[in-house]
Amino acid sequence: MAEGPGRGSRKNRRAEILDHAAKLFHAQGYHATTMDDLAESLKLNKGTLYYYYESKANVLFEILLNTSEQRLAMMRAQSADMSSEDAVRHFVEDTISYLAQHPVEAAVSFQEAPFLSQWLSKDQVRVIQKRHRDFEKHAVDAVTKGQAGHVFDPDLDPRVAAQALTGIVSWFVRWYRPNSRLSAKEIARQSSSLALRGLLVREAADPRMQVSRIASAGHA
Amino acid sequence: MAEGPGRGSRKNRRAEILDHAAKLFHAQGYHATTMDDLAESLKLNKGTLYYYYESKANVLFEILLNTSEQRLAMMRAQSADMSSEDAVRHFVEDTISYLAQHPVEAAVSFQEAPFLSQWLSKDQVRVIQKRHRDFEKHAVDAVTKGQAGHVFDPDLDPRVAAQALTGIVSWFVRWYRPNSRLSAKEIARQSSSLALRGLLVREAADPRMQVSRIASAGHA
Repeated sequence: MAEGPGRGSRKNRRAEILDHAAKLFHAQGYHATTMDDLAESLKLNKGTLYYYYESKANVLFEILLNTSEQRLAMMRAQSADMSSEDAVRHFVEDTISYLAQHPVEAAVSFQEAPFLSQWLSKDQVRVIQKRHRDFEKHAVDAVTKGQAGHVFDPDLDPRVAAQALTGIVSWFVRWYRPNSRLSAKEIARQSSSLALRGLLVREAADPRMQVSRIASAGHA
Repeated sequence: MAEGPGRGSRKNRRAEILDHAAKLFHAQGYHATTMDDLAESLKLNKGTLYYYYESKANVLFEILLNTSEQRLAMMRAQSADMSSEDAVRHFVEDTISYLAQHPVEAAVSFQEAPFLSQWLSKDQVRVIQKRHRDFEKHAVDAVTKGQAGHVFDPDLDPRVAAQALTGIVSWFVRWYRPNSRLSAKEIARQSSSLALRGLLVREAADPRMQVSRIASAGHA
């Protein structure tokens, strides 16, 4: 296909459109943003914008697809013979690191997730939800493997544990600000340490849980 | 003030409006919902609806205020001399229990949080954000108290730990379905167990973290 109207290659122009769109969706929500807003932000006429993306839904779809693909690619890059502890560490730390580097796209992804079936076509929803399930599966698999190896607490339901890990990393998008007192790297390290210890099997002789229960009963 | 038009007391009618509004905001988002949609859902004429709430923003504000007040009230009801472990357990379990009982209002609260300053007046935003900070403070205080008592890991930043707890309970709103395999109570119990163990101080003689690191290095 020949180059479209305007400056720059088709690929660069599409990336630029996605960048502006993510910022607008982040600031005012997908529903409140129009293709007119997007064209104005890009200083493009609307016809040129439609040459690159035939609908606002397709713009959102590509933002969500890129984000979910990139997060998945980080999980797939993990070595298959990695220990379950390292798999959990990587799940938490790599995801937080990715989200810190792509805060706008990450925020759009989380804020629009409840409305996917309203904004996108059935096929598009199916593609995104498959990526979300695959991502979750990495956490579930790490927990299950750690339980099989008697490293993680067998009493924990793997899906509940995986959702706890996902909750910790997802919430980071909401509260983290780039000028926070702690770096994203330090937050990632602390979060993975907390999550990992939360999963570890209780040793038979470890009296801490019981001691604390007795102490608190004594206080009450 | 005299009773307004229509059946039922003013108080019941307002509760009914909030209930319908929360369902509409949940299904299609605040921005996409009009006062016409709300009047139609309630089978009220628009004039009657405006008698009860003078704007859509005021409807959203009251939903968010009720939800945040109720969550805070559960935290305030905790005994002041409760152990820090019990405070963390209650924070996680009471919040999940509340969210499971009010899934629609909880979902609206989380989905609209990024857009508060667009939808509400400055004063309204201030009121809601104060409630959110007070809620977060309960988690931070529990962590800090546990660290002062040498029960929780002193290396954890209290705010990062508090946000991890908040992330676990907030994410529950996104993934929990009432027909899930596990009850909300069981999910709450498992989540608090994972979170609490994640906070506990590492015993000097506890070799588990080191062992797992060495084992994984050997595998690589």
